[in-house]
Amino acid sequence: MSIRSLENLASRLNRLPGIGVKTAERLAYHILTLKDEDVEGLASALTEAKRSIHPCPVCGSYTEAELCSICADRKRDGSVICVVKDARDVSYMERMREYRGLYHVLGGTLSPMDGIGPDDIRIAELIDRVKKGAVSEVILATNPDVEGEATASYIMRLLKPLGVRVTRIAHGIPIGGNLEYVDEITLFKAIENRREM
Amino acid sequence: MSIRSLENLASRLNRLPGIGVKTAERLAYHILTLKDEDVEGLASALTEAKRSIHPCPVCGSYTEAELCSICADRKRDGSVICVVKDARDVSYMERMREYRGLYHVLGGTLSPMDGIGPDDIRIAELIDRVKKGAVSEVILATNPDVEGEATASYIMRLLKPLGVRVTRIAHGIPIGGNLEYVDEITLFKAIENRREM
Repeated sequence: MSIRSLENLASRLNRLPGIGVKTAERLAYHILTLKDEDVEGLASALTEAKRSIHPCPVCGSYTEAELCSICADRKRDGSVICVVKDARDVSYMERMREYRGLYHVLGGTLSPMDGIGPDDIRIAELIDRVKKGAVSEVILATNPDVEGEATASYIMRLLKPLGVRVTRIAHGIPIGGNLEYVDEITLFKAIENRREM
Repeated sequence: MSIRSLENLASRLNRLPGIGVKTAERLAYHILTLKDEDVEGLASALTEAKRSIHPCPVCGSYTEAELCSICADRKRDGSVICVVKDARDVSYMERMREYRGLYHVLGGTLSPMDGIGPDDIRIAELIDRVKKGAVSEVILATNPDVEGEATASYIMRLLKPLGVRVTRIAHGIPIGGNLEYVDEITLFKAIENRREM
């Protein structure tokens, strides 16, 4: 039993991250059971999001407007820039509701193995923003993995000569975490970064 | 940071089965990184599948043609009908490549709790097919759960007076399975349905 348009739908769903062959097939069959307007709605949500969203020319995160809502917000603290790997990280940070500075989205991390060098991510744009002068602190919030650490070190070496304060987000045991289930490297970081009480 | 079209996309993805809030968000961000033609391709695959696929008027499984490829295949054995819950089950059965009869898709199983009675699934259509005369055996292949068993019993009682042979697919230990990991009910069925060697 081969139904061309069903197989095409399943194969396109299967290309999405985390959607295996079985899940794609299950989703495709489910979509056939939806109302016409719900399928149209999903299809137009796809093209509409892709059409109307573009990177903010300042920070590189996503926006439908000229500037993103954070860069456009005059109540945010323009003297602090938090550097993150990608646009999703901005939404994670914003959920915290505590950070009031701006962001800089790199659009990736340095990864010589994958052929991603300094010119492939938005490092030059970050340096330009800092050189323009109003920035007093850059918080490096790339992930605590090999690429994230290497990227943070690389950017730190470029920023230091500019006289700006460069900080790195803390690594340690998550709140609510348990020593038993924390990996050795996190535990080592937690000891290394211990603070006076 | 609220981006309307991104949130709309994530919320529509989130309505799909097995796609949680986090996965929907991750997929939505991923879709923004795809090429325009890939997003258009996925969107049109959705509407195209929904537009061109309809239930086969004979067996109730999905088809783009007038009859499904199985009902239209004159080499299939029209004297045997395998009754399944939904159209996906047909594709599972077809993977086996051994069954040469036809199918009947119920489009659900009896479930008084959910208000699904005999008139809500394609039971009358099955009786009609059997009454037309050329059918010698009906294999009940609904799932071995409460609703599937109840549906099989219900259909069996309606078919018996018509003089057709009614069989139920076997339940037991899966091939490659292990007694240690098989649940008690399956094990009970495996003993109950034991065969002479």
